[in-house]
Amino acid sequence: MLYQGKSKQVFETDDPRRVVLRFTDRATAFNGVKEAQIGDKGRINCAITTRLFAEVAARGVQHHVVDQLSATELLCERVEIVPVEVVVRSRAAGSFSKRYAVAEGTRLDQPLVELFVKSDALNDPLINDDAAVALGLARRWELAFLKETSLVVHQALAAFWAGHGIELVDAKYEYGRAEGRLLLADELTPDGARLWDAKTGEKLDKDVFRRDLGDLGDTYRALLARIGAA
Amino acid sequence: MLYQGKSKQVFETDDPRRVVLRFTDRATAFNGVKEAQIGDKGRINCAITTRLFAEVAARGVQHHVVDQLSATELLCERVEIVPVEVVVRSRAAGSFSKRYAVAEGTRLDQPLVELFVKSDALNDPLINDDAAVALGLARRWELAFLKETSLVVHQALAAFWAGHGIELVDAKYEYGRAEGRLLLADELTPDGARLWDAKTGEKLDKDVFRRDLGDLGDTYRALLARIGAA
Repeated sequence: MLYQGKSKQVFETDDPRRVVLRFTDRATAFNGVKEAQIGDKGRINCAITTRLFAEVAARGVQHHVVDQLSATELLCERVEIVPVEVVVRSRAAGSFSKRYAVAEGTRLDQPLVELFVKSDALNDPLINDDAAVALGLARRWELAFLKETSLVVHQALAAFWAGHGIELVDAKYEYGRAEGRLLLADELTPDGARLWDAKTGEKLDKDVFRRDLGDLGDTYRALLARIGAA
Repeated sequence: MLYQGKSKQVFETDDPRRVVLRFTDRATAFNGVKEAQIGDKGRINCAITTRLFAEVAARGVQHHVVDQLSATELLCERVEIVPVEVVVRSRAAGSFSKRYAVAEGTRLDQPLVELFVKSDALNDPLINDDAAVALGLARRWELAFLKETSLVVHQALAAFWAGHGIELVDAKYEYGRAEGRLLLADELTPDGARLWDAKTGEKLDKDVFRRDLGDLGDTYRALLARIGAA
């Protein structure tokens, strides 16, 4: 095992350029303060990730997934994760609403991009381009790539979810460096996005767990069934 | 009185386009949690502000000061303060060091600009350009103006302080809107900057008060004497 994440594990393979990404049933929130085992979560998030990476690949975005190996495992390119997380927001919610006192659900004129340092120890602080470059977290062209690509990805995924009656409110994207290229990496799941039912506004993402709004397993199973990837 | 700040008061005048800015002896820190009266502070900060605005004016930067009326009062243009504070950093210190776990004093390759929402209620959160525009705090050209001008101002003031054996580590700048123009506004004092003795590293700014390093009045009096504006 190369890396133990909060809800994923990464394993070496015989090929130095490949890793196996395994989705676990663990759910965490508030930087690990709250946690639980959610039966079936690994399988569901693996299926959703596979479906969504296919969606963005169709828009010409290069990503790290090579193949699905099992219900909970993906063969991926081995990348060096860029320590800058990109959040794209279509509406104010979560930390953005709290930080700037903007009512949750306030629609933004256009998708808004924020960068955060990927650091549990620092609690993922917001950062601007100049500081990210000054601290050596990424080069300036990389930040431009991350932001531009994330907007393309976000638009593709918003269209996908809209086709299933679901609004993509915000989402986090991560990237990896691999042989001079930047690849969309990590996962694309309701753990790292806000998904609201387009008609009822019902939350269909990890906020169900964060805010004790219901059973996360049931929510994720229903979501997967809804996009027909069960 | 139009406005009661933490260490300044703003008064109306007979001229609707002019206000009087009065510097008080009050010192506050940590968003008002810590406070004290520091004898002579109003006079010293008024003198330093007058001296430094003259310095930046010589570099072609337009500011709000019209005239000094008394030892603690400046006649200023009446402006609408842009609710975005600009911080320019030459070295890591204070909130930047804490937020990103960078040792205080770490030199940055080039001056780094950060924007913060001017809001005591929100504790002045960091914000990026996109969010500041989306929240209607400023227009995009205004942010460009604020950042570009702050770098000019910072360079001018760094050169000024360097001429007196003092290093300008970081500083906060505020701007006001007045009849279509943006003017450098507020104050330019050791309350809103970090000034370190170039040889000894001794702190010559409000950190003396924040961190209980000595007598703030003595520090400010010595600073004023050093630049020969006493």
